[in-house]
Amino acid sequence: MNPELYILGSGSATPTRERNPSAQLLKIGSAKILIDCGEGTQMQLLKYGIRHTGIDYICISHLHGDHYFGLIGLISTMSLMGRQQVLNIIGPPGLKPILDLQILHGGMSLKFDLNFISTNGNHPEDIITTDDFELSTFPLKHRIHCTGFLIKEAPKQRRLLPEVANSYNIPVEAFKDIKAGSDYINEAGEVIANDILTEAAGTPRSYAYCSDTIFDKQIATYFKDVNVLYHESTYMKNLEDRANMYFHSTAEQAATIAQMTNAAQLLIGHFSSRYDNLQPLLDEAKEVFTNTELAVEGSVWWI
Amino acid sequence: MNPELYILGSGSATPTRERNPSAQLLKIGSAKILIDCGEGTQMQLLKYGIRHTGIDYICISHLHGDHYFGLIGLISTMSLMGRQQVLNIIGPPGLKPILDLQILHGGMSLKFDLNFISTNGNHPEDIITTDDFELSTFPLKHRIHCTGFLIKEAPKQRRLLPEVANSYNIPVEAFKDIKAGSDYINEAGEVIANDILTEAAGTPRSYAYCSDTIFDKQIATYFKDVNVLYHESTYMKNLEDRANMYFHSTAEQAATIAQMTNAAQLLIGHFSSRYDNLQPLLDEAKEVFTNTELAVEGSVWWI
Repeated sequence: MNPELYILGSGSATPTRERNPSAQLLKIGSAKILIDCGEGTQMQLLKYGIRHTGIDYICISHLHGDHYFGLIGLISTMSLMGRQQVLNIIGPPGLKPILDLQILHGGMSLKFDLNFISTNGNHPEDIITTDDFELSTFPLKHRIHCTGFLIKEAPKQRRLLPEVANSYNIPVEAFKDIKAGSDYINEAGEVIANDILTEAAGTPRSYAYCSDTIFDKQIATYFKDVNVLYHESTYMKNLEDRANMYFHSTAEQAATIAQMTNAAQLLIGHFSSRYDNLQPLLDEAKEVFTNTELAVEGSVWWI
Repeated sequence: MNPELYILGSGSATPTRERNPSAQLLKIGSAKILIDCGEGTQMQLLKYGIRHTGIDYICISHLHGDHYFGLIGLISTMSLMGRQQVLNIIGPPGLKPILDLQILHGGMSLKFDLNFISTNGNHPEDIITTDDFELSTFPLKHRIHCTGFLIKEAPKQRRLLPEVANSYNIPVEAFKDIKAGSDYINEAGEVIANDILTEAAGTPRSYAYCSDTIFDKQIATYFKDVNVLYHESTYMKNLEDRANMYFHSTAEQAATIAQMTNAAQLLIGHFSSRYDNLQPLLDEAKEVFTNTELAVEGSVWWI
């Protein structure tokens, strides 16, 4: 099953009645990864019926509040609900002392470990490889230390072709090794090459998340050909000066990054609270990159 | 106009779909006081159309997250919206370093001062007197440092009786001093006593907020005869052991405190997420103290 992306918040620095701050949940294989966690994220999970159980990875792009003020509340709720499983938190180095202080003064005694992994704001880094996914970070140009996240499905095993295997009288016990990539050697010592017995699995799906950033062509050196790219679009192009001043991007610029990286689909979000109607932002992006959609609250996307 | 109390959250440690964590807004004279500020409080203000402009006092009872995790987000929004007015924060000593660290790592440059006033968890204290109100704290027995808040209208000036003043030929220029309590001495040197010329204003209204606490008769020594008492009612009496274990109260116990302190009205809140229907909690409290109401989201009370 393809990874699924649930949008929990599409707002920017100040929330509106309709838009919560940034948060997304990615289901990939058996894993759940929360990407950014603005204030109210745990209420958004409740609203959309998504259980926090099984969220073992939380990625925080940077320490502006609209991207992480909901994290301590979620950790608190996980603790009160009896969580014991390690929680991996990938984020800027300043995040750990903030959480530590809140845990200390709140008298919270967590029954699970917080495994902090500090991100690097200067160069790309591979962070975690699991059976389900590979996660890496890349630097974004914002007012403070900020990273994007690139998440790919783990390489898939080749698919066994049972009819071909039967035609070579290969016993079932040998299938596991063949699926893992081995050739088969029969009793006569003949080698039947793996690529005769199997076919390639689909290409692992990939998702890139570009949180707050000024328009930066350097981004196109960090990934190519992702299935879905999320890129912030705080403003429309008539406010490009403002976007530059605050190290944000316009819808047109987000679309340009999608074009440069040859993404299959672009999702835009992190909309300024000045926009009640998002259609003009979508139209602006589509002029440059047709397959663009609005990453609004409650929407779900196949990666 | 009597003070008005707006309930923004009635939940306890873990939010539910219907209930936000603790937060209340008290309008008293020209002042707005926010009492506790759980996660999502700024969204609740938006939802109910209450502007954060003019909130110059924020009281935080204790550092369990459901009472303060929304504070930094509100401060951030106030800053982004151009606030310049001093913000007074009354709360436990640990609150300041937490906010300082979040402000530091978020690169926030506030254009207004945060004036921290640390509460005392061991004995009652007078905190602030303004033209609008007098605010004091009193200790509550919870798992960590926790205080309640007692807020009274500032003593009101006596009301001038214009017909009486005219009958003594008192010039209008003298009215201000008379309203402030002075006697009037006429040209003949006769003293006309203030209580002839004025009548008493109404008694200042008062509100007591008892955030998280175990049932504690000591509370009845801190205030009497308030117009409205808010007292937490996390559980029903069949879970009194659990209430004791976690230093919380039952609806019956909240009502007992209302009875002991001779409150005119009791509001109960901070309901455990296990209760979908709150009527049984209300019924339980009413058996002891008839004038009890549920302090649920969106309700407004005259103090």
